[in-house]
Amino acid sequence: MMIGVVAGAGPFAGLDLLGKILAQTQATRDQEHLTVLSLSLPEAIADRTAFLLGETAVNPAYAIAAQFAQLAQAGASVAAIPCNTAHAPPIFDVVRAELARQAVTLRLLHMIQAVGGFLQAHFPHVRRVGVLSTTGTAVARIYPLHLEPLGYTVLTPPPGVQQGHVHRAIYDPDYGIKACGVATDRARADALAGARWLQEAGAELLVLGCTELPLAIPEATLGPTPIVDATLVLARALIQAVAPQKLRPWRLRS
Amino acid sequence: MMIGVVAGAGPFAGLDLLGKILAQTQATRDQEHLTVLSLSLPEAIADRTAFLLGETAVNPAYAIAAQFAQLAQAGASVAAIPCNTAHAPPIFDVVRAELARQAVTLRLLHMIQAVGGFLQAHFPHVRRVGVLSTTGTAVARIYPLHLEPLGYTVLTPPPGVQQGHVHRAIYDPDYGIKACGVATDRARADALAGARWLQEAGAELLVLGCTELPLAIPEATLGPTPIVDATLVLARALIQAVAPQKLRPWRLRS
Repeated sequence: MMIGVVAGAGPFAGLDLLGKILAQTQATRDQEHLTVLSLSLPEAIADRTAFLLGETAVNPAYAIAAQFAQLAQAGASVAAIPCNTAHAPPIFDVVRAELARQAVTLRLLHMIQAVGGFLQAHFPHVRRVGVLSTTGTAVARIYPLHLEPLGYTVLTPPPGVQQGHVHRAIYDPDYGIKACGVATDRARADALAGARWLQEAGAELLVLGCTELPLAIPEATLGPTPIVDATLVLARALIQAVAPQKLRPWRLRS
Repeated sequence: MMIGVVAGAGPFAGLDLLGKILAQTQATRDQEHLTVLSLSLPEAIADRTAFLLGETAVNPAYAIAAQFAQLAQAGASVAAIPCNTAHAPPIFDVVRAELARQAVTLRLLHMIQAVGGFLQAHFPHVRRVGVLSTTGTAVARIYPLHLEPLGYTVLTPPPGVQQGHVHRAIYDPDYGIKACGVATDRARADALAGARWLQEAGAELLVLGCTELPLAIPEATLGPTPIVDATLVLARALIQAVAPQKLRPWRLRS
């Protein structure tokens, strides 16, 4: 079974997912690692947040679907895209529809549903979940859509904190993670400002619901609050789908 | 133009190359990064050193060629494998012959030739080059074969240092980089023992001629001695081949 990854949205998130698939696989030599086909073709995929905010009419879903189809044709049987914002229904539902229309045989995992399952399995007593994300993910209410039916209350930062801090940590052209490829001190400070707001609002757990954010907040906990990295959860879901016996046991600090 | 990477030999080296392609590309947003298709299928590729030492009769060249052919079929036009040992003539010549036999259209870059060109461009005054590698790479004399015709003297550790230290840094089942996926303190100490031997033997520059070694020796220099990471050189050669205008200027400390 070959894992397929649409790795260009964005490319550092793709790299991060590939690394987490390796790190979460039990293997003592090269040959025991899983088969992974990764296509990073970022040029073709328009910015997901820009589409959700109406700044571009180009739905990135078509390019994403085409890349999944290419992975399937090359042999992938289970696939995912490590981009939370791409899971907004106006994008992800169109990806699914396109793959169905083209009769592509591929099991497509859903990153945010995977996070929901992960919370139920590992944090059964948590109810109030804080989510840090792009503005696109927040506006599209992707996390509430998938976590509220499971009984969670989803907290997100108010517009001032979202636009003035969290969004800039990711997108600022001078110090944002997408521009720099690393988390600058200022990007980390902005991400932490969002995290602190959520803690003060009563979040019992924080989901890093944008694949750039684990670069800025690599910790397993912030004070008493556990941090759940959606990319790590997706890596584990992919391993679980193709080789459950090779999935490393989960620990909060690993 | 799509870059293809045979990324499973070993999978951490593949990941490292993908990260270095991103890091060496000039881009200020996701969409400016290059197109990269990466296939990590380590299960199919027998250990390269084991083959060169006669411990297995299975030449990994056939599996490697099949994976290059798969990348070409999926659209890659320039490709490479981030494994120094796979560039031993008994392996790499067979890869090339297989691709020619199957009429695969693909520009295959050669990691060690790329290192030779890099040394000529950036270290024109260096003559004595120390190489740290697997025992397979050393026994197959891959680096002397490609660097001596350019006028370099290639130094490698004597068998005791090679087997007792350098090889174990990479392969030891308890603390080696391949088993652990990270450089343990002991793996680093073993790699540094090899580096010091080469420095004392008069090496003016050290090539990390095994893709695992940059994990153990991430420094740009060891004392006065510049370190050249063959994986970084290969990343730059791939960018140069598809989008030279996007290649970051090279600096010894970057």
